[in-house]
Amino acid sequence: MAKDKKFVEDITPMGEDFAQWYTDVVKKAELMRYSSVKGCMMILPAGYAIWENIQKNLDAMFKKTGVENVYMPMFIPESLLDKEKDHVEGFAPECAWVTQGGLEKLEERLVVRPTSETLFCDLYSNIVQSYRDLPKVYNQWCSVVRWEKTTRPFLRSSEFLWQEGHTAHATAEEAQERTIQMLNVYYEFCKDYLAIPLIKGQKTDKEKFAGAEATYTIEALMHDGKALQSGTSHNFGDGFAKAFGIQFTDKDNKLSYVHQTSWGLSTRTIGAIIMVHGDDSGLVLPPRIAPVQVMVIPVAQHKEGVLEKAAEITDMLAKAGLAVKMDDSDKSPGWKFSEQEIRGIPVRIEIGPKDIEAGKAVVVRRDTREKIEVALDELAARVPEILETMQNDMYERAKKHLEEHTYSAKDYDEFKDIIENKPGFVKAMWCGDLDCELKIKEDTTATSRCIPFEQEQISDKCVCCGKPAKSMVYWGKAY
Amino acid sequence: MAKDKKFVEDITPMGEDFAQWYTDVVKKAELMRYSSVKGCMMILPAGYAIWENIQKNLDAMFKKTGVENVYMPMFIPESLLDKEKDHVEGFAPECAWVTQGGLEKLEERLVVRPTSETLFCDLYSNIVQSYRDLPKVYNQWCSVVRWEKTTRPFLRSSEFLWQEGHTAHATAEEAQERTIQMLNVYYEFCKDYLAIPLIKGQKTDKEKFAGAEATYTIEALMHDGKALQSGTSHNFGDGFAKAFGIQFTDKDNKLSYVHQTSWGLSTRTIGAIIMVHGDDSGLVLPPRIAPVQVMVIPVAQHKEGVLEKAAEITDMLAKAGLAVKMDDSDKSPGWKFSEQEIRGIPVRIEIGPKDIEAGKAVVVRRDTREKIEVALDELAARVPEILETMQNDMYERAKKHLEEHTYSAKDYDEFKDIIENKPGFVKAMWCGDLDCELKIKEDTTATSRCIPFEQEQISDKCVCCGKPAKSMVYWGKAY
Repeated sequence: MAKDKKFVEDITPMGEDFAQWYTDVVKKAELMRYSSVKGCMMILPAGYAIWENIQKNLDAMFKKTGVENVYMPMFIPESLLDKEKDHVEGFAPECAWVTQGGLEKLEERLVVRPTSETLFCDLYSNIVQSYRDLPKVYNQWCSVVRWEKTTRPFLRSSEFLWQEGHTAHATAEEAQERTIQMLNVYYEFCKDYLAIPLIKGQKTDKEKFAGAEATYTIEALMHDGKALQSGTSHNFGDGFAKAFGIQFTDKDNKLSYVHQTSWGLSTRTIGAIIMVHGDDSGLVLPPRIAPVQVMVIPVAQHKEGVLEKAAEITDMLAKAGLAVKMDDSDKSPGWKFSEQEIRGIPVRIEIGPKDIEAGKAVVVRRDTREKIEVALDELAARVPEILETMQNDMYERAKKHLEEHTYSAKDYDEFKDIIENKPGFVKAMWCGDLDCELKIKEDTTATSRCIPFEQEQISDKCVCCGKPAKSMVYWGKAY
Repeated sequence: MAKDKKFVEDITPMGEDFAQWYTDVVKKAELMRYSSVKGCMMILPAGYAIWENIQKNLDAMFKKTGVENVYMPMFIPESLLDKEKDHVEGFAPECAWVTQGGLEKLEERLVVRPTSETLFCDLYSNIVQSYRDLPKVYNQWCSVVRWEKTTRPFLRSSEFLWQEGHTAHATAEEAQERTIQMLNVYYEFCKDYLAIPLIKGQKTDKEKFAGAEATYTIEALMHDGKALQSGTSHNFGDGFAKAFGIQFTDKDNKLSYVHQTSWGLSTRTIGAIIMVHGDDSGLVLPPRIAPVQVMVIPVAQHKEGVLEKAAEITDMLAKAGLAVKMDDSDKSPGWKFSEQEIRGIPVRIEIGPKDIEAGKAVVVRRDTREKIEVALDELAARVPEILETMQNDMYERAKKHLEEHTYSAKDYDEFKDIIENKPGFVKAMWCGDLDCELKIKEDTTATSRCIPFEQEQISDKCVCCGKPAKSMVYWGKAY
């Protein structure tokens, strides 16, 4: 098997070829590799550590809202998948099928879970009897499989990691509340930890989840002006409950169907981090999600006292609660700097003989390249502040980018012109008809991203057909 | 679908039917349920929370030794599995096969991973070039599938959760060191967190892992005197490296094969916790692994001030860093007590009007039922002490059980008599021949559990054939 060359080449500039830039960054930051199985990723330590931090922080937010984690089987019998008509139609074409177990052909084919609504419904139909058993607010962290023809690292792959929450409630109101509550959790998580601003809204019927009554989404804008659906929350009403017979005795001793929700966020989010914050030197990780926040890099480390001082700083910052590492390998400082930059480590601390003599170190921000001289005895206090400032600046910068790349279109010519020439979101009115949605997609390749909660009255006519408008929609090309 | 009845029946006494006791406990503590897929478990919140605590603590121990987490695909192409002869022979008979992806029949069948040696080897063959790239110390937390005919909750199921570490090293010595290091991590983890004493040793060739040079194991003794293999660590030598072409340039610019290890611990461990510590009232969880350590149960909660005081205690203990919950449901105190007992929550705190008047609460240990009166203002200091004492007592009790159920046999009659009449481990000498191992299994159903690191000279002859003995072996019936 051919050995890979070490990546010493430059990263393709973003402005030259965004797709190639993305692939270069993913590869050179050593986040993942493709495996021998078509379309399946191997997530390497630098990539998986980001996912671990996402899991840890998002899971803590879930648990504050009463979520309990479980683990469901990865296989779904075909007959179980078949129970809800829309759902099976949506997923069957992209399922992986197990047909043989051990040495025997299976009597019934099994689907490797593309999502687990049917399993949770099967469980709930067995364990929910009374209103006292409600709500059930379960979640699982797992991998799912959707047989994709074309794949891109983190954005689209045949297997990916995610969490899927599945809840059952006594009333429609409570289910709707939970649907929006979890959308808000995603929104806050992306804002606070990933420094990613989002548009919150509802999906059109065409774009909603197979089997859902309503799907809500958070949509992010990538650096190239394309949208990325970053998390979804679905209200199922009692559709699945009726298909699976999930009934309970309510307080008046009457038999009712439960109302259900589901919500998921996946390793796609890592793609969003890369494409929202990355630059021509590589990855830029928001400090609050970075597995390594600070890299201490000794300069002229062969000189007396340098390595000792670098180690001392590393220890001190670790004690201050930061995720810090020291690079004392035998590479040159310049090489170490560029590795730290490619990997998106938020700040590096340069410390050499002259710095030690002057009682200071140089802190370099990854996002702005700003060099900040900090007295050695102030590092433990200042570095966390610098990281916090960087986190906030990254969010503000991304927000500005989102705002500057969000346009309004009153008529179809303007709409088409924007889609063709100005990458970003287009706000435009819509009559609510599928035909207009399909026509817009055919004419421009743009899709409806969401009907945002914050509505504006751009005009009173549908941007496509000119009939009376029902709502304002965010449109855009999407990953 | 038939609704389950709530579990109000008693748990079958352990002495009457151990297997039924185990099933009852698993069911009534609501740890898991079987799913619609034969042999696959749904792990419910009470069970999964134990696994989360195992993950959290064991993962922290891994990381201290330099382990990095990754995620590998769940599918293995048949040709990749085929590369190492012993390995494929060991696993092929119990594989689940994916033969269709989307609407198309696959050109090559995919195995749902039963274990991931082959994938890690494939990765290492691509990313290891120089001694500078070594060691690689990767691990993943995932589920694996082994198509089992007979299944038991947590102990044997077609899909189970585990971690699998896979490492590559420059020298045989380093690989051997890592193999033993990780076995010791398992040993310490089980001792310190699960309060489970273990026998450490090497597996015989018959019992070793498919493709390994040597397999090491930790063996625990269940309450019924049966052994449970609770974790294994394998040294692969350079066998897999040769099959997969994993070579590196060493310091002298010579091409060498890497030496590899792998090691795994699974949800079986939850079965071990149940069968080592449980009693006729249900589960007994070691405090350091219990998702809920303390249940505060108000008595006569309708009386003024009781619920408030119970909530105050709950808050106070949460602030002291304990995992504490209050049961303020409308069930009777007696019902709440027995639920807390079934679920194995280490201590409960009973607080009623008389206690409040006397300025105290009653702390009840789950393991001994000991009732300890504690002044309210001493609870935050005393409860952690009580939990710590309980943790240590549980270990000592299990150790005593292990010692009292470990026997020595000098000759075959004695051996057979012990196996038949005294459930537990039997220490006996072995000549090293497979034939004796097979004969012992056929005659008694006992298997060699391990060749312990701590050897004793029981006699100088093989207990089975009477030829000169090579080593002392632990034998026993096993799960």
